[in-house]
Amino acid sequence: MNINSIVISIGNEILLGRTLNSNLSFLGRELSRLGIPILRCLCIQDEDQEIQQALLQAWQEADVVISTGGLGPTLDDLTRQSIADFFGKELRFDEDVWDYIQAMFQRRNMMIPESNRAQAMVPECFEVLQNHRGTAPGLYYKASGKHFFALQGVPGEMREIFSQQIAPILKQAFPMAKEIVQRDLHTFNIGESALAEIVHEDELPRQVNLAWLPQTGRVDLRIYGNDVGALHEAEQIIRAKAGEYVWGVDDEDPSQSLIRALKHLGYSISVAESCTGGLLQKLLSDVAGCSEVFWGGVISYHNDVKTKLLEVPEVLLEKWGAVSPECAESMALGVQRLLATDVAISITGIAGPDGGSPEKPVGTVYFGFRIGEQGIIEHRLLFGDRESIRHKAAETAILLLHNELRKLLK
Amino acid sequence: MNINSIVISIGNEILLGRTLNSNLSFLGRELSRLGIPILRCLCIQDEDQEIQQALLQAWQEADVVISTGGLGPTLDDLTRQSIADFFGKELRFDEDVWDYIQAMFQRRNMMIPESNRAQAMVPECFEVLQNHRGTAPGLYYKASGKHFFALQGVPGEMREIFSQQIAPILKQAFPMAKEIVQRDLHTFNIGESALAEIVHEDELPRQVNLAWLPQTGRVDLRIYGNDVGALHEAEQIIRAKAGEYVWGVDDEDPSQSLIRALKHLGYSISVAESCTGGLLQKLLSDVAGCSEVFWGGVISYHNDVKTKLLEVPEVLLEKWGAVSPECAESMALGVQRLLATDVAISITGIAGPDGGSPEKPVGTVYFGFRIGEQGIIEHRLLFGDRESIRHKAAETAILLLHNELRKLLK
Repeated sequence: MNINSIVISIGNEILLGRTLNSNLSFLGRELSRLGIPILRCLCIQDEDQEIQQALLQAWQEADVVISTGGLGPTLDDLTRQSIADFFGKELRFDEDVWDYIQAMFQRRNMMIPESNRAQAMVPECFEVLQNHRGTAPGLYYKASGKHFFALQGVPGEMREIFSQQIAPILKQAFPMAKEIVQRDLHTFNIGESALAEIVHEDELPRQVNLAWLPQTGRVDLRIYGNDVGALHEAEQIIRAKAGEYVWGVDDEDPSQSLIRALKHLGYSISVAESCTGGLLQKLLSDVAGCSEVFWGGVISYHNDVKTKLLEVPEVLLEKWGAVSPECAESMALGVQRLLATDVAISITGIAGPDGGSPEKPVGTVYFGFRIGEQGIIEHRLLFGDRESIRHKAAETAILLLHNELRKLLK
Repeated sequence: MNINSIVISIGNEILLGRTLNSNLSFLGRELSRLGIPILRCLCIQDEDQEIQQALLQAWQEADVVISTGGLGPTLDDLTRQSIADFFGKELRFDEDVWDYIQAMFQRRNMMIPESNRAQAMVPECFEVLQNHRGTAPGLYYKASGKHFFALQGVPGEMREIFSQQIAPILKQAFPMAKEIVQRDLHTFNIGESALAEIVHEDELPRQVNLAWLPQTGRVDLRIYGNDVGALHEAEQIIRAKAGEYVWGVDDEDPSQSLIRALKHLGYSISVAESCTGGLLQKLLSDVAGCSEVFWGGVISYHNDVKTKLLEVPEVLLEKWGAVSPECAESMALGVQRLLATDVAISITGIAGPDGGSPEKPVGTVYFGFRIGEQGIIEHRLLFGDRESIRHKAAETAILLLHNELRKLLK
C-alpha cells in the first residue's frame, strides 16, 4: 500500500509571486525520505472558502495532510477558524499556549499586542505542536487513520516543528512506509557531460536510481532506493571511476569541508577579497566554530586598500592591473603576512555587469593561495550574472584550496 | 466581473523538493499586473490521471488556465497526450514544428535524438506558440471565452513566451480586466503585531487591499487595488501613522538604499565585521557600481586582528570583552582611520550557537557607526539561528546607518 501526502500552501504572497514556496521544497525532500511522497500541492488564497475546498479534497485523497501558512496574528489569517469549521470543532482559548506566548514576549522585553491572543485559539480535539522559535504553535488532528498538521509559514519555525515533532509521529504511524535511502556525491572540476561519459546508470545495481543534480558551477550525483547494500555498492562503483572529482557527500558543504581540513592540519587561514566583496569570508564564517582556524581578512575593493593594507606594489597594479595573476599572488602574500596565518586565499576578478574588456571579459577571476611558503595561482572564466559569478568565484576558491589540502591529509 | 486564472505546475521534481517553483512566482507577478490574479495553483505529478483531474477543476473555475512543465522530450512527459485527451482532440505531427526543432539542433551542431519527435506533436485546433530559446513550443487553445496555455517548465523559455505572446493575447481578450497597481512599503524597527496596532485596513480607502509580508527581521506592507488615486491616499494614511518606520518602497533593498544615500552625500564607507564575517560587505558589494563609495574593510574574527589592524586597545578587550559597545566604537573608529573613509560601520556580536552567557546571550549584537567625526553606538538582541542572527545583524546595520543618513539628506 502506498502512503501519500498532500500539502496545502496558504497565503496570497505565494500566488502574488512575492514569495517562493521553499516550504514545499523542504516538505518534498523530508516526506520522500519518510516514504510518504507528496501526491499534490495546492497553493491557495487565505480565504475561508478556498481553505475549506482544499481541505475537502486533500482529506479525501491523502493519508497525511499538511498546511503551511496562515497562522500569524493579523486579521487576514483566517486559517484557524476555517480549519476548526471544516473538522466541525469549536475554537477554544488555550491558557497554556497563551502563557507560552506571553513568556516569549517577556523574554524579548516586548509588549504583547492584543492581536496575538488569536494565536492561542486551538480547535477542540486538536493537539498543540510547540513552536520554540516563534509565537504561533502548530496544530495536529488525527482521525480514522489520517493525520492533519497545520504549520506556520515562517520557514525556520515550520522546519523545526516538522523535524522534531511531526517526523517522529509519522514514523510511528506508518511503520510500513519504506524509507528511501539516498546518498549525494558532490563533484568539482568536471562538467555534467564529461561526468556522464564515465558514470553510467546501467552499470549500477538495478535497485538503485541515479539522478543528476546540477548545482551552480558543479554537479551532484544522487543515488537512491530502498536497498542500503545496493546503494553502498553503487557508491563504490562511482568512486572507482570518478573518485578524484568527489569532494564531499550528503549535507557537507564546501566551507565545512575546508574548515574541517584546516582543523585537522592545525592551520590558520586569512582571506583577501576584491570582487567577491566579503562573500568568501561570509561562507567560511557560516560554519559554527570556524573561529578556531579562521582569523579574518581584508576586503580590498578600492586599490588604495590593496596597496596600503596588503602591500600590493603600485607598479604591479600599473603594469598588470588589479585583475591579474600577479595581483592575486601579491594579495594572498600580503594578507598572510598581515594576519600571520599559515594559509591564505585571495580573489580578484570582474563580477560585472561593467568592467569587462576583450582581454579580460566579465567573469575573469584570479585566485591566489598560500600554504606555508608555497604559492599557487589559479585562473577561471566564470559565466552568469553578477550574483552567480561572485558565488561561483567564492565557492571555487574554497574547493581549490580544499583540493590542495586533501593532498596533505592523505 | 473578476477575471481569474489557475496555474497547473506539472513535474515530480517540484513535489520531490528538488526545484523551487519559480515559474509560479513569475506568473503570479505578471498575471496580477494584468488584472487576472491567480486564484489557485495546483502542483501535480506528471501522470495522466492527475493532469486530467487538475484540468477539469481549473477549466471549470477559471477564465485562464496555464500549465507549466511536462513538455520535454523524455518518456515521463505525458502532458501532451493528456491535454489532447482532456479537450477531446487528436494529437497530430506538425511538420513546421519539426522543421523548427531540426533547424535548432543543426544550429547547435548537435544530432537530433529521435525522442524529440514527440515535441512536434500538437493537438488539433491548438495554436503553436513559438519557442525561440528551446525546442518544445508552447500550446494555446481557446473555447467559449476561456483560454488554455501549455508552457514548458524551463524558466527562461516560459518567461519569454509569456511576455511576448501570451500577455498580448490576454490584454486583447480581457480589455475589461483592470490592471492591478501595487505599492510595497518596507518598514524597519517595528514588529508585525506592533505595526498592526497602528495601521488598520479598515481606515484605508475601500478600494484598496492591504497585505502583510513579513521578511526576516522586518515587515513589508503591500497596498494594492485597481484605483491609483485610492492607492496614493492609502499610502499617505499609512505614512502619516508609521512613516518613521518606512525606509523604502517597491523593489528597493537596504543595500541599494544605503549606497544611493552615500552617493548623494558623496561619502565613502568602510566596514569592520566580527560576527557577520563578511556578510555586511557582501551585501554592499551586491550592488553593481558600489565601488564608487564602498572602499573595503576588515574581517576581524580573531582578537589579534582587532588589536593589530583596527588598533582596538588590548585593555579595552580585557575590561569589556570583544562583544561590547566599547569594542564596537573602537572598531568603527579603527577602520575609518585605517581606510580613511567618511563613514564607517562596525559589528560585533554573538551569532551562536555557542559563546552566549547570561549577561550576553546568543543574539547580542553591538553596532558602531562613524559619520565624519560623529560616533553612534547601537545595541540589539536578535533572535533565530546562526544564519538568521547574522543576516538580521548585517541588515540592521545597513538600515540603522541609512536612517541616520536620511536625516542628513532632508
